[in-house]
Amino acid sequence: MQELRIDLGARSYPIFIGDGLLSRADLVAGALAGKADGDTFAVVTNTKVGPLYLDSVKRALAGKRVFDVVVPDGEAFKTLATIERILDALAGERMNRDGVVIALGGGVVGDMAGFAAACYQRGVAYVQMPTTLLAQVDSSVGGKTGVNHPAGKNLIGAFHQPVCVIADTATLLTLPERELRAGLAEVIKHGMLADLEFFQWIEGQIERLLSREPDALAHAIRRSCEIKARIVGLDERERGVRALLNLGHTFGHAIEAATGYVGWLHGEAVATGLLIASDMSHRLGWISRSEFERVHALLQKAGLAREAPRIGVARALQLIGMDKKVRADKIRLVLMKPLGHALVTPECPAETLRSVLTAYFGAT
Amino acid sequence: MQELRIDLGARSYPIFIGDGLLSRADLVAGALAGKADGDTFAVVTNTKVGPLYLDSVKRALAGKRVFDVVVPDGEAFKTLATIERILDALAGERMNRDGVVIALGGGVVGDMAGFAAACYQRGVAYVQMPTTLLAQVDSSVGGKTGVNHPAGKNLIGAFHQPVCVIADTATLLTLPERELRAGLAEVIKHGMLADLEFFQWIEGQIERLLSREPDALAHAIRRSCEIKARIVGLDERERGVRALLNLGHTFGHAIEAATGYVGWLHGEAVATGLLIASDMSHRLGWISRSEFERVHALLQKAGLAREAPRIGVARALQLIGMDKKVRADKIRLVLMKPLGHALVTPECPAETLRSVLTAYFGAT
Repeated sequence: MQELRIDLGARSYPIFIGDGLLSRADLVAGALAGKADGDTFAVVTNTKVGPLYLDSVKRALAGKRVFDVVVPDGEAFKTLATIERILDALAGERMNRDGVVIALGGGVVGDMAGFAAACYQRGVAYVQMPTTLLAQVDSSVGGKTGVNHPAGKNLIGAFHQPVCVIADTATLLTLPERELRAGLAEVIKHGMLADLEFFQWIEGQIERLLSREPDALAHAIRRSCEIKARIVGLDERERGVRALLNLGHTFGHAIEAATGYVGWLHGEAVATGLLIASDMSHRLGWISRSEFERVHALLQKAGLAREAPRIGVARALQLIGMDKKVRADKIRLVLMKPLGHALVTPECPAETLRSVLTAYFGAT
Repeated sequence: MQELRIDLGARSYPIFIGDGLLSRADLVAGALAGKADGDTFAVVTNTKVGPLYLDSVKRALAGKRVFDVVVPDGEAFKTLATIERILDALAGERMNRDGVVIALGGGVVGDMAGFAAACYQRGVAYVQMPTTLLAQVDSSVGGKTGVNHPAGKNLIGAFHQPVCVIADTATLLTLPERELRAGLAEVIKHGMLADLEFFQWIEGQIERLLSREPDALAHAIRRSCEIKARIVGLDERERGVRALLNLGHTFGHAIEAATGYVGWLHGEAVATGLLIASDMSHRLGWISRSEFERVHALLQKAGLAREAPRIGVARALQLIGMDKKVRADKIRLVLMKPLGHALVTPECPAETLRSVLTAYFGAT
């Protein structure tokens, strides 16, 4: 087992990475010490993950009061209506302030269980038990929680840090191939935004990652969490540097919003977003053609070179305009200069943006 | 104008108290400095308060982009459904992270506008402009936001501090008599829980307070805010001493829940709750008979000695069981020992509680 720490003062917490950790009750108990009594646990999961791992988690919590809340699977259900359903369940079980919510599942479950924990009784403790690569390398770490709104992805939510993150790498063995690839998009993103050496390592290990070799996956998760933990530790509430973690996400969110959050996995949309951000960085002269081509080649090898939907440049611009990274009505983008180093553009060259968007989303 | 400060580190903020402050744009601008650009304002108000003060507030913000969100009046609408409506409006106007929510109204508007501000884009700045005595002396200060749930009052919410509180005492001149009295319940509560001298002052000034003499009201607001600010500064998230501010509220919430949040103003329910808490404190020998009678007499003079609904002791116990002050399945009550000094009982003598509840709520 590996252990990292995310440093946020009184809200600091450990990230555990290793094989078979879902059955380790001691990890939860240790993380809760001094924070909540931990007599009652609400395990929030979905119809796909529940049948696989709910029993293990419940066995590990033997002797405690445990109930589960099973929500439908998929980003389409990441809505306030589902949050209300989770809150109804917590209230229906009369959970009190010392109760603990466990998020058992991928990013969607984690975001919703975390947001419900943030709102219930004005905030109860919660534990992240991510079961997808995407959640293990990204969404379970850093305390962003929330749901989508027709006007924008993750438009409603809270910053609410978990008491610990337990990434059981054994869960990746049951992960559908497509979700594994989608998770790799965020791994690649971490290399692109902060660590060229890690990016090179991924280029060299991509076949081993795709064939789920445990040591390769464990290193990818650890290095991703290290990069994310360092940035979140500097800027918990995304007033500045944390925005760099959104590399590829402005474009990715536009794809997800345009398609109604169906048909595209989040990681797939981010991957196409990473390609667009690389192209934009190249057109501005900030990364070289060969760097752009390396990104393209790696995404292709990872099976992540999906074409953006032809929604037209006008609609794409509109969707980007509602993104949370907008400040003072100016569109600010996260780009690279050079590969391995992301930055937030002070303001966006409108003509370059328009031609890049036209190339990917079409003229009309 | 008087100015107090609530001391919460990076989340500290001023409370302004005085006549005609709703038209003072400089107060808002000063409080926002360094926190939000403040180019866009969403004024959340209700159908009763909007027609009275919306124009003044909009005039004061001339030159800014301002839109309003008018919700129905009353505790019955303090629900997640109304929050969703407010969030839809903010998203529909494409407000970004630098936008500011203004809560213009009583406690219900303040709690909901604050919660919507806490959730929108994971938290935007908001300003409290309380227009009722209850909101000016209590609910606008301290950052508690949220809505009711069928299973309990304020069961869903967030701690989200405003950037400032602007208490315009001129708004109290249009306040219905009944709401003025309800607000006095929280003023009396502050004396009972922390300051016997203030309690005595209220006893001496009750007629002047009821006839809305400006200097008496201004002192009552200032002293209430001082007491509340000190306690919140020690314990922002109600892990300990902040619970003392809930004196009378456990019983009051039971009344409100039993009556479906209609028919009783929050302050009226709290007043009856204060009487029950005093009776309980007396039966435990913690306050004298004469102290209990002083409380009763003052509540009567303030027109706040309303009889609790006859819901029966069993139902009352059940409603108290779901209260947020419950920890580790033990009922803990806020009582006095002596008058002017509140404490949280480590555990509640069940027989005394049962007989007090029977006296007020009836046997069945």
